[in-house]
Amino acid sequence: MRSEIIAVGTELLLGQIANTNAQYLSQKLADEGIGVYFHTVVGDNRQRLLSVLKLAEARSDMIILTGGLGPTQDDLTKETVAELLNVQLIIDPAAKERIVNFFARRNQPMTSNNLRQALVLEGAHILPNDHGLAPGMVFHSGEKIYILLPGPPSEMKPMFEEYALPYLRSMRKTPSMLYSKVLRFFGIGESALVTELSDLIEGQNDPTIAPYAKEPEVTLRITTLTASAEEGEKKLKPVLAEIERRVGQFIYGEGEHTTLEGVLLHTLSERGQTFAAAESCTGGLISQMITSLPGASSVFSGGVVCYTNQAKLQLLQIDEGLLSSVGAVSAEVAKELASGIRASLGADYGISVTGVAGPDEVEGKPVGLVYVGIASKDHAEAIECRFAGTRKQIQLRSAKTALFQLWKRLKER
Amino acid sequence: MRSEIIAVGTELLLGQIANTNAQYLSQKLADEGIGVYFHTVVGDNRQRLLSVLKLAEARSDMIILTGGLGPTQDDLTKETVAELLNVQLIIDPAAKERIVNFFARRNQPMTSNNLRQALVLEGAHILPNDHGLAPGMVFHSGEKIYILLPGPPSEMKPMFEEYALPYLRSMRKTPSMLYSKVLRFFGIGESALVTELSDLIEGQNDPTIAPYAKEPEVTLRITTLTASAEEGEKKLKPVLAEIERRVGQFIYGEGEHTTLEGVLLHTLSERGQTFAAAESCTGGLISQMITSLPGASSVFSGGVVCYTNQAKLQLLQIDEGLLSSVGAVSAEVAKELASGIRASLGADYGISVTGVAGPDEVEGKPVGLVYVGIASKDHAEAIECRFAGTRKQIQLRSAKTALFQLWKRLKER
Repeated sequence: MRSEIIAVGTELLLGQIANTNAQYLSQKLADEGIGVYFHTVVGDNRQRLLSVLKLAEARSDMIILTGGLGPTQDDLTKETVAELLNVQLIIDPAAKERIVNFFARRNQPMTSNNLRQALVLEGAHILPNDHGLAPGMVFHSGEKIYILLPGPPSEMKPMFEEYALPYLRSMRKTPSMLYSKVLRFFGIGESALVTELSDLIEGQNDPTIAPYAKEPEVTLRITTLTASAEEGEKKLKPVLAEIERRVGQFIYGEGEHTTLEGVLLHTLSERGQTFAAAESCTGGLISQMITSLPGASSVFSGGVVCYTNQAKLQLLQIDEGLLSSVGAVSAEVAKELASGIRASLGADYGISVTGVAGPDEVEGKPVGLVYVGIASKDHAEAIECRFAGTRKQIQLRSAKTALFQLWKRLKER
Repeated sequence: MRSEIIAVGTELLLGQIANTNAQYLSQKLADEGIGVYFHTVVGDNRQRLLSVLKLAEARSDMIILTGGLGPTQDDLTKETVAELLNVQLIIDPAAKERIVNFFARRNQPMTSNNLRQALVLEGAHILPNDHGLAPGMVFHSGEKIYILLPGPPSEMKPMFEEYALPYLRSMRKTPSMLYSKVLRFFGIGESALVTELSDLIEGQNDPTIAPYAKEPEVTLRITTLTASAEEGEKKLKPVLAEIERRVGQFIYGEGEHTTLEGVLLHTLSERGQTFAAAESCTGGLISQMITSLPGASSVFSGGVVCYTNQAKLQLLQIDEGLLSSVGAVSAEVAKELASGIRASLGADYGISVTGVAGPDEVEGKPVGLVYVGIASKDHAEAIECRFAGTRKQIQLRSAKTALFQLWKRLKER
């Protein structure tokens, strides 16, 4: 099936927002094995939208539109599709009720243009909008399928996942589904990973293996077309085992939304343990990453940002002699910082980062030289790293390395 | 002039990346007063690209293409445009030299496909690529203008700004330019700002006033069409003065890339002063924001992440009686934290944040209740805030409020 995506909205043509809806839908459709051949963005203009629709009708089997379902005069997606297909617009009673209730609950007067949002193509399959007022719809016109979705991603995404996708799947003649696993890697680059797995990736057919880099991490999606989740699981099993055998030491989790801070929080939480962080060149990034998660307080005892030598002396009583002899960017200081914050906050583990994030050298040490310290009650060690990139990239890589290395040590024990 | 943007690349149709190039170019062209009427994304496929080009030729005056200039067989933008316009491709000597030198410097063999990157449309105006190997070009075909740019944003953006934009400006018959100022606001929402300025915005013609919200901040771009920067300055002056008069207390800076942490760093740096941060519910975000800037060490003495009560006691010696009587989320504790971190690190100012970021209540206090503390040597105060939104939104708003409030106090003195 050939599909294309049309986003309607002048704000996209002014560059006020990026067309992330098209990216999202393309990913989801690729997962279903539906090919996307074109993306188009067109403004809130009847004539130009009509020309784009006529073109799409001539070249695609499925046409997905986002945007232009709202209450204003500018919103004319439904009206234009109705004109193209010569179909009536009728009020959807459920959508109307939702709109009326929405204003009643707020004690606000409902202007009549709001009811425009309840208009749908006569004969369409309605997609309810659980996060807004304008419903979406699927309309069949001969062999062609039109799917109309709202523009705001917060409405469009749940509507697509909860209503449009199940409908599309139900249309399939043979019961089949795409079953996939996402593996998350840290500490290995995309090209190194692809090299390790090159024979698997090149020889792939079913399952397919697709790497994707989101610096400084790499993700691998392994997908198979199958009749059931059980069968899918069985088909993926040998491939996953082979990947694990070759590059298992870099895998930290499964799933699209899995993060390093998330797996560390989960692992510590299971063990009933805590950690604390002393951050020099990462400047609070580790603390910020872990505390962005709800429930962080049960595993994170706190941290210090000892960006300056004075802060290292004041907040963690680092030996001044050590700082002046080996310097702040050193394995020795990394260990002292990790041990110091652990002891100060009575945590089970302390981690630290001290290094040169750039743009300038420090203590004659090069940009990208970073020491990560890890301390438990009776052991402290430091890992020397050399990172490339901008200041922000070095900071992010350093923070993630500290989280990853602590997590690895917990897993090994 | 009617323009449109065509992005070439299958990775866009698979949703691996969003079409941020189209967003960027749309913004830049809007600034120049050039209307963008369509965005199209098409895959690395000669036939489909040709169909898209024919359509664009029929409806637009200027056609901007991004992507497909690289060395592989998949890269066929130049070849397809050459076919459409019946133009030869020739080797550009400067581009060839750059490619040869690139491989020579790295001691790597240059495969012949790399030279494909030096091919250009015969008669084109060449746009040098300072960050990659494939040059861009501007080609005039009758009244139509074709602009070919590379796909990677790190190559495309500097090429557009440094070479394509000056060329487009030089084409203008009457010497005119768009002159604009960007004002950055914090502490006022987009709708409140628009309400305050509604008569100015609605009655606008030249200069134009365009608000843009990027939560939790708002930006206002004021633009005029002018013959020179001096004249532009003069035309904007009364409008800027009126905006300043009405909502000046929320303006923290000018310019697209200006940030709160940046203006605070600049102001402290000018005064030769320092600050330190004690962060509870923001969990290190303030420290991370300020240390993401080079030169932070001259104004930022360090910080503590006292996410737990234990950390507040251990790291800052907060009175345990205070914590148990009024609770950690209180004006009193905010003041103590700010004074404590200031004194501990010998900084000129201390700032603190303690609050409920959610998703759950703390101490029976509601999600979104946040106290920001600000302390100098002989004064401490706390600001009570009530924020809405997700955990991350509340954390970001809290951190920015602390930076903004400290900056405001410095400006007032």
